Amino acid sequence: MTDAATNMRLKLPITCFILEIILIILFGTLVQYDHETDAKQWHNQSHEDYENDFYFRYPSFQDVHVMIFIGFGFLMTFLQRYGFSSVGFNFLIAAFALQWATLMQGFFHGLHGGKIHIGVESMINADFCTGSVLISFGAVLGKTSPVQLLVMAMFEVTLFAVNEFILLSILGTRDAGGSMTIHTFGAYFGLMVTRVLYRPNLDKSKHRNCSVYHSDLFAMIGTIYLWMFWPSFNSAITAHGDDQHRTAMNTYYSLAACTLSTYGMSALTAHDGKLDMVHIQNAALAGGVAVGTAGEMMLTPFGSMIVGFLAGVISVLGFKYLSPILEDKLKIQDTCGVHNLHGMPGVLGAIVGAVTAALASTDVYGGGLSDVFPDVASGDVTATKQGGIQAASLAVTLGIALLGGLIVGFILKLPIFGAPPDTICFEDSIYWEVSYELIFIRVEFSTSTF
Amino acid sequence: MTDAATNMRLKLPITCFILEIILIILFGTLVQYDHETDAKQWHNQSHEDYENDFYFRYPSFQDVHVMIFIGFGFLMTFLQRYGFSSVGFNFLIAAFALQWATLMQGFFHGLHGGKIHIGVESMINADFCTGSVLISFGAVLGKTSPVQLLVMAMFEVTLFAVNEFILLSILGTRDAGGSMTIHTFGAYFGLMVTRVLYRPNLDKSKHRNCSVYHSDLFAMIGTIYLWMFWPSFNSAITAHGDDQHRTAMNTYYSLAACTLSTYGMSALTAHDGKLDMVHIQNAALAGGVAVGTAGEMMLTPFGSMIVGFLAGVISVLGFKYLSPILEDKLKIQDTCGVHNLHGMPGVLGAIVGAVTAALASTDVYGGGLSDVFPDVASGDVTATKQGGIQAASLAVTLGIALLGGLIVGFILKLPIFGAPPDTICFEDSIYWEVSYELIFIRVEFSTSTF
Amino acid sequence: MTDAATNMRLKLPITCFILEIILIILFGTLVQYDHETDAKQWHNQSHEDYENDFYFRYPSFQDVHVMIFIGFGFLMTFLQRYGFSSVGFNFLIAAFALQWATLMQGFFHGLHGGKIHIGVESMINADFCTGSVLISFGAVLGKTSPVQLLVMAMFEVTLFAVNEFILLSILGTRDAGGSMTIHTFGAYFGLMVTRVLYRPNLDKSKHRNCSVYHSDLFAMIGTIYLWMFWPSFNSAITAHGDDQHRTAMNTYYSLAACTLSTYGMSALTAHDGKLDMVHIQNAALAGGVAVGTAGEMMLTPFGSMIVGFLAGVISVLGFKYLSPILEDKLKIQDTCGVHNLHGMPGVLGAIVGAVTAALASTDVYGGGLSDVFPDVASGDVTATKQGGIQAASLAVTLGIALLGGLIVGFILKLPIFGAPPDTICFEDSIYWEVSYELIFIRVEFSTSTF
Repeated sequence: MTDAATNMRLKLPITCFILEIILIILFGTLVQYDHETDAKQWHNQSHEDYENDFYFRYPSFQDVHVMIFIGFGFLMTFLQRYGFSSVGFNFLIAAFALQWATLMQGFFHGLHGGKIHIGVESMINADFCTGSVLISFGAVLGKTSPVQLLVMAMFEVTLFAVNEFILLSILGTRDAGGSMTIHTFGAYFGLMVTRVLYRPNLDKSKHRNCSVYHSDLFAMIGTIYLWMFWPSFNSAITAHGDDQHRTAMNTYYSLAACTLSTYGMSALTAHDGKLDMVHIQNAALAGGVAVGTAGEMMLTPFGSMIVGFLAGVISVLGFKYLSPILEDKLKIQDTCGVHNLHGMPGVLGAIVGAVTAALASTDVYGGGLSDVFPDVASGDVTATKQGGIQAASLAVTLGIALLGGLIVGFILKLPIFGAPPDTICFEDSIYWEVSYELIFIRVEFSTSTF
Repeated sequence: MTDAATNMRLKLPITCFILEIILIILFGTLVQYDHETDAKQWHNQSHEDYENDFYFRYPSFQDVHVMIFIGFGFLMTFLQRYGFSSVGFNFLIAAFALQWATLMQGFFHGLHGGKIHIGVESMINADFCTGSVLISFGAVLGKTSPVQLLVMAMFEVTLFAVNEFILLSILGTRDAGGSMTIHTFGAYFGLMVTRVLYRPNLDKSKHRNCSVYHSDLFAMIGTIYLWMFWPSFNSAITAHGDDQHRTAMNTYYSLAACTLSTYGMSALTAHDGKLDMVHIQNAALAGGVAVGTAGEMMLTPFGSMIVGFLAGVISVLGFKYLSPILEDKLKIQDTCGVHNLHGMPGVLGAIVGAVTAALASTDVYGGGLSDVFPDVASGDVTATKQGGIQAASLAVTLGIALLGGLIVGFILKLPIFGAPPDTICFEDSIYWEVSYELIFIRVEFSTSTF
Repeated sequence: MTDAATNMRLKLPITCFILEIILIILFGTLVQYDHETDAKQWHNQSHEDYENDFYFRYPSFQDVHVMIFIGFGFLMTFLQRYGFSSVGFNFLIAAFALQWATLMQGFFHGLHGGKIHIGVESMINADFCTGSVLISFGAVLGKTSPVQLLVMAMFEVTLFAVNEFILLSILGTRDAGGSMTIHTFGAYFGLMVTRVLYRPNLDKSKHRNCSVYHSDLFAMIGTIYLWMFWPSFNSAITAHGDDQHRTAMNTYYSLAACTLSTYGMSALTAHDGKLDMVHIQNAALAGGVAVGTAGEMMLTPFGSMIVGFLAGVISVLGFKYLSPILEDKLKIQDTCGVHNLHGMPGVLGAIVGAVTAALASTDVYGGGLSDVFPDVASGDVTATKQGGIQAASLAVTLGIALLGGLIVGFILKLPIFGAPPDTICFEDSIYWEVSYELIFIRVEFSTSTF
C-alpha cells in the first residue's frame, strides 16, 4: 500500500519543520510570561502564593488536557484499522494547534505593548481552540493525510480566533464552555470541509469504516474521559469562586441525565432493542456540549438535567435518522457524526444560553451578576438584550464556520497534500508502519495445518 | 441470540425515561445550590475566592470520579466477551445512582428548610454511594439485565443512605473512606443479591466466565486507576488541612505494602509459582479498602503498611480458598470476587478503625482531635466508647446490607426484567450490537484460501 | 513453559515478604508525620487550612503518580506478549521503590532528631526516585525476573539517593524536573546493567521482541499520559507561586515543539515515509526530559520550544541510527531505547540547565532569584559558577550511574534470581498464568469448518 502520491517522506517533514520554525520565531518575537509566570513581576507585587492563578486553574487545565489528547484521541479509535491515525494524528495536530492558538488568540485578545502575555488561562484557551480543530478532524476522519490536517488546523485556528474575538470582545457574548465558539464552530466548519471533500466512491473503503470489538473498547476510554472531565472543561475559565463551582456542578448533572436518555433512546431506536456503541460513545456526551454556554449561569441542576436529557434524545435521533440523510442527500460524509455530538447540541446550548441570559436578574445573581454578565451588571445592556446578543452570536458563528469551511475545503482539495485514494480510506497502513495480527494468524494457520 | 424475554426495546427506554423524569421533577422541587455554588449567597458573604470549598475538594472529586467510571468500569472488563456491558452498564447505573444518591443523601443528611443544598461535597458523597452500588454490580456481573441493575441501584442507594444516616448522624461513627458504609455495605448487599439470584446451571456459560489476554490488559487500566487515586478517595471528604493530607499519605503507604504482599501471596499460592492476574487486579487494592476508616486517624504510615500488608494476604487467600467454598457450599456466585476485595478488607478496615479510635487521645491529636473525633473532643463520649460505636456500626452495616440484599434479591427475581438465560451469561451480544473479529477472520479465511 | 530455574513459587514470595517486613520495621522506628500531616503539630501552629502544602502539590502529585503507574506501565506494553509483565512488574517494583525511596531520601535529605518527616513533598520525591528505577527497567525489559527487578530497585534507589544528596545538598545543583537526577541517572544505570547482562543469543526471542497492532495502541495510553502530565512532573516540587506556574508552561511548549519535530523526523528517516510508532511513542516525550532542569528557570516558551525541537530530532536519530550501533558494537541491548528517550535528552537537559543558570541575573529574575537560585541570590556563588556546578553535576551523575550499574549488573548476574533463558525472553507466560486468544481461534476453526 505504498504510493508516491500519499508518500509522506518529504511532505510531512517539510510541513512540520516549517510550521515549527515559524512558531518558534514568532514566539521569540511576540510572546512573554504574564505577571503570574514571570519571576520578577510576580515577586514585585505583594500577594500570597496561593493567590496565583495556577492554583485556581491548573487542575482544570490538566483535565481539559486529558480530554484533548486522550478523550478526543481515543474516542476516534473506534474504527478497526485506524487506531494509530486516530490517536497519532490527533496528537500531532493538537500539538501544533495549541502553539498556533496561543499566537492567534493572543493576537486578538489583547496585546500588551505589542507582546502576547501567557499563563495558565491562555494554556486553557489554547487547548479549547485545539478542541475545536479536533471536532472538525472527526468529520474528515479516515479521509485525510496528516499534511492536510495540519493545513486545516492552521486555517481553522485562525478563523476560530476571529470568531472568538467577535463574540467575546466585540459583542460581549458569554460562552465559557464554548457551546458556540468551540462545538458549533468546530462541527459546522468540519461538516463544510467534508462536504467540499466529498468522495463519491467512498463505499470502496466501506468494509473498513466500522468498528470491531476491541476498537470499541478503546473508544470507550475516550468517551469516559470526556464525560468525566467535562465539568472541568466548562468551568475551566469561568470566574473564581462560586462560578467555577457552580459550572462544574451543572455540567455534572446535565451529563448524568443525558446518559439515561441516551441509553433509553439507543434501545428504543436500535435493531432488536440492542444498545448501539456509537450512541453510547457519542450521544452520552451531548449533555456537556449543551450546557457549555449556560453552565456558568444560574441554570440550576434541575435546568441542567432537562437540557442534558434533551441533548441525549436529539443526539441519538441524529445518529439514527439524520446522518443517513446528510450523507445521501447533502453529500456530507461525517465519519464520527460530529453533527450529532457537537453540531446540534452546540446549537441547543447556544439557545439555552440565550434564554437563560435573557432571564438573568440581580434578584437571582446578587453581587455575582458582575461575574457572569458584566455588561448587564454595569447597566450597559439589559438582560433581554444580552439574550439577543447570545442568539446573534450563534448566527455569526454558523456563518464564519460555514464560510470558512467552504474556503478551507477547497484549499485542502489541492492535489498536493497526499490524501488517500477512495479505495484506501480508514486505513492506518497508508501512513504508518503496521504489523497486523491478522496476517500473523493466517500465515501461522496455513503453514501449520496443511 | 435474540429473545423476546431479554429484548430491551421497550423495557430499558421505559425504565430510563421514567426514572429520569422522576429525578428531574424531584430536583426541581427539592434541590438548591448551597452557599458556595449560589451566585447571590456566595457574594453576600465576605471571603476570598480561594476559601471556596471547590478548591479544597474538586481535584479529589475528579480522582474519585475517575475511580467510579474508569476504575470500576474497566476493572470489570476482564471477561472476554463482556467488555461493552462492564463499561457500559457501569456507566449507565453510575449516571443514575449519582443523581438518586444526591436526593437520598440530601434527604437524610439534613434538609435546609425542606430543601437539599448541594455542592462539591455532596457530589463526592453521591459518587461514594455510587461506588457502593458498583461493588454490588461486581457480584452479579454477567448475570443481570440493565433494567435489573437500575432497579437494584434504586433500592441500594436508598438503603445505603439509611445506613449512612444511622452511622454518621445517629451513632456518630467516623468512616471517611467508607470501609463500612461503602465497601462492607456494597459487598455484602451484592453477595446476598447474587445468593438469591443463584443460578444452578451457570456452568453452561462457564466458557465465557474467564478472561483473555487483551481483556486482562483492559482490566489493568481499571485496577491501576483505582490504586493510584485511592488516596484521593479516602481523603476526599475529611476535614481540610492536615486531615486530607494525612489520609492521602496513609492510604498511599497502605496500598504500596498491600501490593507486595499480593504479589508474594499470588506466586506462593498459584500453580507453578506463576502470578495470577485475578489476584493482581483485585487483591492489590485491598489496602485502600482496609484503611478507609482509620486513614484519617493518626494511624501512622507504619500502621497503614501493616494493615495494607494483611489486607493483601487475606484477599489473595480469599480468592484462592474461600471463593470456591462460597460458591459450592453457600451457592454464592461472586463473579468479581467482591467478597475478597471489598467484603473482608472492609470488615478488617472497620476493626482497625474501631481499635485506632479507642486509642485516640489529646496527647496524640492535640487540637486536631475535634476534626477527627468531634464527639470525643467535646467530651460527649470517651475514646473507648467511640471505639465501641465503631464496632457496633460494623454490625449495623452488615445487618442492613444482608437484609436489604435479601429483599432486593427477591424483587430482582421477578421474571419481568429481562435477565439472561443460564446459557448466555457473560455475553455482550445479548444486549449490545457486537461485531466480533473472530467472525471476520473466519470469513476472510474461507473466501481467500479455498 | 515451566522450568525450575524460573519458577517463582518461593523466590518471589520470600523476596516480597522479607523486603516488606524490613520496610515496615524501618518505618516503625524511623518515620514520622511532618508538621503538615501531624494532627497535633498542624493545629499547634497558626495558619489557614489553604496554606497546607497539600493544596499546592497534591494535584501535581497525582499527575506524577499517573505517570509512574499508567505512563511507564503502559508505555512498555508495546511488546506483543509482554503486556502483563510490563504493567505488572512496573506495578510491583514501583510499589516497593516508593517505600524504599522514602527511607533512603529521608535518610540523606535531613533527619529531624533521628526521624524522617514525611508529607506530600516526600511522596513526590519518592515517586520521582521510582521513575528513575522504571527507566532502568525499560532497558532490561523482557530479560529479567521480578526478583531481579526488585533487587535492582533496592540498589538503584539507594544509589539514586546518594547521587541526589551529592547534587542537591552538597553541590547546590538545581534540578527540579530531574534531567540529571532522574533521567540521566536512570538511563545510564539501566544501560550499564543491560550491558553486563548481555545475552549473545537473544535473537532466539527475536520474534517476540516486537509489537502488534493492539499492543501499540495500549502503549499509546502510556505515551499520552506521560506527555500530558509532564508539566506537572517538572513543576511538582518547584517553589510555590510563579515557579510552579512557569515550569508547567515551559514544559507544555517544549513538548508541543518536540512532537512536531518527532513526526517530521520519523517520516523523514523511516521506510517509505511511513511513521514509526516507536518514534511517536518515545521521541515525542524527549521534550519533557530536556527541560527537566531548566524548566523552572526563565527559559521562556521560546527557549523551551527550541530545546524541545532539538530533543525530538536527537531522539529519533538515536532510535534510527544509534541504537543499532549500541547493540552491535557495544553489546547494549536496550529494549525500550531508554538511551534515546532519557539518556541523550537528559544530557541535553543538563547542558541547557547549566547554560541557563550561567545566564541568570537579578535583572531577569528580580526577587524571584532566591526561589530558583538561592545560592546565587545569597551571593554564595556567581551565576557563572552555578552554571559550572550544574555541568559538574552531570559528570557526577554519569559516573555514579555507570559505576553503580556495573556493580549492580554483576550482582543481578548471579544465577539465583530466576532470569528467563534466551529462548523465552519477552514472554509473559514464563511468570504469569496466560490464556491466549490465538489458541482459541485455531481450535474453533479446525473443528467447525472441516
